[in-house]
Amino acid sequence: MYYGVVFLFLIVSAQGDYFADRDAFIKEEASEMLGGSIQLTEKEEKVNRILMQYKFREMDAGFQNPRNFAPSQHFFQARRLIDNSNVFKLIQTIPKGALLHGHDVCLVSSDYLYALTYRENLYACTVNGRLRMKFFESGRQDNTCNWNLINVLRIIDPSYDRWLRSQINLYTTHPKQRYPNINDVWETFESIIFSVLELLTYRPVFEEYFYQVLQDLYDDNVMYMDFRGFLPSLYELNGTIYQPLETIRFYEETIEKFKRDHPKFLGARLIYSPRKDDNATMSSSITVAKEARKTNPKFVAGFDLVGQEDARYPIIAYLNELKELQALGMDFFFHAGETNWFDTKTDFNLIDAILLGTKRIGHGYAITKHPKVMKLVKERQIAIEVCPISNQVLMLVDDMRNHPAATLIANGFPVVISNDDPTFWGAKGLSYDFYMAFMGIAGRTADLRLLKQFALNSLTYSSLPADEKRAAIASWEKDWQNFIDITISSYANEIPH
Amino acid sequence: MYYGVVFLFLIVSAQGDYFADRDAFIKEEASEMLGGSIQLTEKEEKVNRILMQYKFREMDAGFQNPRNFAPSQHFFQARRLIDNSNVFKLIQTIPKGALLHGHDVCLVSSDYLYALTYRENLYACTVNGRLRMKFFESGRQDNTCNWNLINVLRIIDPSYDRWLRSQINLYTTHPKQRYPNINDVWETFESIIFSVLELLTYRPVFEEYFYQVLQDLYDDNVMYMDFRGFLPSLYELNGTIYQPLETIRFYEETIEKFKRDHPKFLGARLIYSPRKDDNATMSSSITVAKEARKTNPKFVAGFDLVGQEDARYPIIAYLNELKELQALGMDFFFHAGETNWFDTKTDFNLIDAILLGTKRIGHGYAITKHPKVMKLVKERQIAIEVCPISNQVLMLVDDMRNHPAATLIANGFPVVISNDDPTFWGAKGLSYDFYMAFMGIAGRTADLRLLKQFALNSLTYSSLPADEKRAAIASWEKDWQNFIDITISSYANEIPH
Repeated sequence: MYYGVVFLFLIVSAQGDYFADRDAFIKEEASEMLGGSIQLTEKEEKVNRILMQYKFREMDAGFQNPRNFAPSQHFFQARRLIDNSNVFKLIQTIPKGALLHGHDVCLVSSDYLYALTYRENLYACTVNGRLRMKFFESGRQDNTCNWNLINVLRIIDPSYDRWLRSQINLYTTHPKQRYPNINDVWETFESIIFSVLELLTYRPVFEEYFYQVLQDLYDDNVMYMDFRGFLPSLYELNGTIYQPLETIRFYEETIEKFKRDHPKFLGARLIYSPRKDDNATMSSSITVAKEARKTNPKFVAGFDLVGQEDARYPIIAYLNELKELQALGMDFFFHAGETNWFDTKTDFNLIDAILLGTKRIGHGYAITKHPKVMKLVKERQIAIEVCPISNQVLMLVDDMRNHPAATLIANGFPVVISNDDPTFWGAKGLSYDFYMAFMGIAGRTADLRLLKQFALNSLTYSSLPADEKRAAIASWEKDWQNFIDITISSYANEIPH
Repeated sequence: MYYGVVFLFLIVSAQGDYFADRDAFIKEEASEMLGGSIQLTEKEEKVNRILMQYKFREMDAGFQNPRNFAPSQHFFQARRLIDNSNVFKLIQTIPKGALLHGHDVCLVSSDYLYALTYRENLYACTVNGRLRMKFFESGRQDNTCNWNLINVLRIIDPSYDRWLRSQINLYTTHPKQRYPNINDVWETFESIIFSVLELLTYRPVFEEYFYQVLQDLYDDNVMYMDFRGFLPSLYELNGTIYQPLETIRFYEETIEKFKRDHPKFLGARLIYSPRKDDNATMSSSITVAKEARKTNPKFVAGFDLVGQEDARYPIIAYLNELKELQALGMDFFFHAGETNWFDTKTDFNLIDAILLGTKRIGHGYAITKHPKVMKLVKERQIAIEVCPISNQVLMLVDDMRNHPAATLIANGFPVVISNDDPTFWGAKGLSYDFYMAFMGIAGRTADLRLLKQFALNSLTYSSLPADEKRAAIASWEKDWQNFIDITISSYANEIPH
């Protein structure tokens, strides 16, 4: 009997050790997670409890029935669920810092883009079955196409509008059927760019449009942007054409105007990003890059190359040109590893990006397959611009829980969350991508500290010069305190204990 | 002019350094990859050139047009492509070592299983719309169901056979529509087990069936198996019931018979794997486990718990029982992390598996989200049993290129490739899973060394006692040399230089 008691005691005590070891194990992993080193204040803890109460409810409903869980579904289906989410509503109010990866002609809401098609003097034609739009003075249309006034086409054909909308958005009720594979969705993506380009590059629309880009971010509590732009030529109705370098002026004027109207907004800088293209086109882009860097060093933050990564030349193809730019002090912010093809010319872009000293990596989707890239990215604190919804719509990942950024978050890598091209999939601002990252990519226990770290990272890894960065972080900290106070008072009745 | 020449020289030389650095970078990553330390002999190099010629052709065709690429498609669509693949045909002939993760009642081809339904005395009924099958002596059916002879049902209703097949296979032409989410596919999976269980546990069929399991492996050049089994009771037509411990005898006799017929075959051992269930059922399973371990220590390699991981109790729920087994010297081979839910009770199974000293991890799909688990798994050389097709059909991953095992392979983790339940998705043997791992999960440059390492790992991390393991590896090495010689002579005209 005595031995029995001792034996029982030994078992219980061993089990006690087991649970202690287990807790320590879980805590150690949690401390390695992105945001794991942040200590929340008492007030922040309150907000965290509100947030996590909602998060647990939503995740647990999804765990019970996956139909309730937005991040495992395609964004086209998930959006309705997200719009109804309390976590999402809270995320919208969070000061999210900066947007570091977005393309200038794809950044407004799709509703705003569509509304632009009601402008006067806008003509349309079709080229190989795809919509082309351009503004003309009445009677002065060029003869490159069979132009008709859109507002007349709308009257003639009641189905025209539905078709037009389909030409400027990837949205479809059955994405898998509509886009059987990645090449299909990219083809449509690139033809949308073709459709909207001359709508947006009409100078007066361009300025209004870009103002709205900033407005959408501001309304979503994003106060700064490093944006990718390819410096398109702009045009006036009278035939005036502005060359790429002149386009910079319109960006800068619009940003200044927006800042005057919204003093809290911190500005925007350009990562000049021509498309990976043939040598002749690239050569003229390099000339523009050099010139832009020289004339607008404050506005031009750096250089990148864009286009469907699998379908285009790899970075290494432009080594000479890139070395030239580097010699002039140009910083690189390369897209790299936006692919599922492992150990191919495409994901070797990750290696070239590192070897060329890239400041950040756009997407880096393939990075977890490259141990040495992982090591260097962490050592050198090269931020990874993760664009969850983009990666899903452009068919790298299906269920967001399979996004490789989960590994980056679990290991405390310098991740920032970006929206890439929200217009074309019906997102708006940065909150949808924050939601996907927070609910779908990060784990169940990831909390306010992760969101705070995402926001802080977006400023820390922005291209802002040191003094402006300090000021930006100070300004964000005020917004953050404000957010905490407002949340506590608005949710006063819902704070769990 | 002179300065110009010097400048040009400096650029070229700097570029030369760049390419040298780049090559070194790629080589360093390649050396960390699983199999990266293997040095191929001259003969093996020849086989490797044949293999890689085919691999590059198939991958490059997929890169051009994803419709050609099997691993990014659902296995139900991909199988036809794989059957036509030259890489697959070569993989079939490779001595693949051992199968370390397969469930006893799901291991034959679906054609063989279907053929069993033509046996005499087999009756069927429906339970909640699902098929149930059982053997009876004519006129001695029990009254638990409305039994009818299957061979009569086939004559009465010409559509019966098609329905019957649908009840014992997950196959469907439109997986996404048929199984909107993971719970749907698991529900069907578990009801298939229900449908086939009493077909297979009729003692004479059970022996024939299990013989065929070994035959399928043997035919696919797999010479040993650690299999999960839940020791079902067997029955005879005369009403005799064999208890779980007696079932062991039939396994052992069948294995001995198969070894007599196929002297090269090395055997099979049981990882006793009851379903995670309520306490009462689990308690009787634990009793069986203790008894089995005592009576058949050579055959019973260890213990595991099975069932849809998200839907069942976590490992920790059975801590007391598991500690008891551990005290008796039982080895654990836990399923853990077969989930997409990050930082939940489910993927914390990975932590409990480690803390309980698991010898291997079944699936470990969630492992790349757990840095400390990753670290310990590598340090302690705990093999990860990766089951590519299972993870796809059971809806953890869609495109095989997103399988987290890519990260494990890139980092040289002790991975083995397994087939889990091939019957229910129309696979056969281990080659389909090897193909998916080689073509879909590993990178383009992964070559014969990876396949060799998979095979070697399957023996190294098997449950075989040290002396038998040495003998098994020696036997495999002979088969491997044989495979190399035969391949060189059969492909003599196709060896690239």
